Amino acid sequence: MQTPRTTPSRSAKRAHYDTERIYSILDEALFCTISYAIDGQPWSIPTAFARDGDQLLIHGSVGSHFIREIEKGIPVCISVTLLDGLVLAKSGFSHSVNYRSVIIFATARKVEDHDEKVTAFVLITNKLIPNRWDDLRKETASEVRKTTVLAFSLDEASAKIRTGGPNDEPEDRELPIWSGVIPLETVRHAAIPDESSVSLPLPDYLR
Amino acid sequence: MQTPRTTPSRSAKRAHYDTERIYSILDEALFCTISYAIDGQPWSIPTAFARDGDQLLIHGSVGSHFIREIEKGIPVCISVTLLDGLVLAKSGFSHSVNYRSVIIFATARKVEDHDEKVTAFVLITNKLIPNRWDDLRKETASEVRKTTVLAFSLDEASAKIRTGGPNDEPEDRELPIWSGVIPLETVRHAAIPDESSVSLPLPDYLR
Repeated sequence: MQTPRTTPSRSAKRAHYDTERIYSILDEALFCTISYAIDGQPWSIPTAFARDGDQLLIHGSVGSHFIREIEKGIPVCISVTLLDGLVLAKSGFSHSVNYRSVIIFATARKVEDHDEKVTAFVLITNKLIPNRWDDLRKETASEVRKTTVLAFSLDEASAKIRTGGPNDEPEDRELPIWSGVIPLETVRHAAIPDESSVSLPLPDYLR
Repeated sequence: MQTPRTTPSRSAKRAHYDTERIYSILDEALFCTISYAIDGQPWSIPTAFARDGDQLLIHGSVGSHFIREIEKGIPVCISVTLLDGLVLAKSGFSHSVNYRSVIIFATARKVEDHDEKVTAFVLITNKLIPNRWDDLRKETASEVRKTTVLAFSLDEASAKIRTGGPNDEPEDRELPIWSGVIPLETVRHAAIPDESSVSLPLPDYLR
């Protein structure tokens, strides 16, 4: 992985370029936000994605405005953010958040091969719901045709991570103000069956 | 609120422009992703924010690269996404997610007034941790000087929302494949005191 261009960091010391960290953040996140610009006007849109080795994959309707813009190969910036905690200090100025984020600069490669497209659908579906794909009604040729898959290189990816407690100024540390961390977590609640599934057993991978 | 320019939606039928919906999403979200472009190259960065009436407020170090770029008043796109559930259908093609998202097109107004800046700090801090500000060591003139506050109009904001179960094709609905929704929630775990706070009582607003 190359050292990417300078990211718009407010704290360059939190930047990381190692592949393992970047991949683990991408593999945990449930969506990314893709930004692009047309005539200087930025646009952004959240979308599901998956990682396949050193590529990030997204899919969308062939008629989608944003897909049609970025499939041309214009520069995009992909942002992924996991919020891990609220960091409470003794001054407002030292409050912070614990997070793991990735930013990727890339251009889209449109995936044309049928099998490579289906592999992308499998990866995106199983990323959201592990082991789901094998249970599903098989994809049709028409569904594959109606869906665009775009691949982005992770060569220009970097991570920023903050962990730990507050960093109060030394003169503030003795103040009798509660400081610490409130951990945040995205939890999956019990699955709620659709009307058509109330009498079907819940698959093991959803327990 | 004006009807904004067309957003890069894959599903225009999910678009909403009413203020109440937009505000409630903004008030629940813990961060936004701000995108901007320089010479056609998009950049994006996640950051904390608060809403003050019909404005969105962010803050950052006066030395921050991204703050210095967007304070010039270049067009930005602000994206906020709350993921509410994974929607499991009987085909991969019909899988979806339940979400509430907002997109805002705006340019920054740099807040110069000292009191207006402090109000922004109060709002941003209390958004992340309700009732926190009044407990804190008072801000100093230097801290206020070192922090830039930017305000963005919400005139060009729109929301997109998906709720409910899967929309399978009629011919798939009888298939014996479990379908339904897995609700997602961001939860706050019990507060963990910093070393300096182990003997301090936990404030009521953190219980």
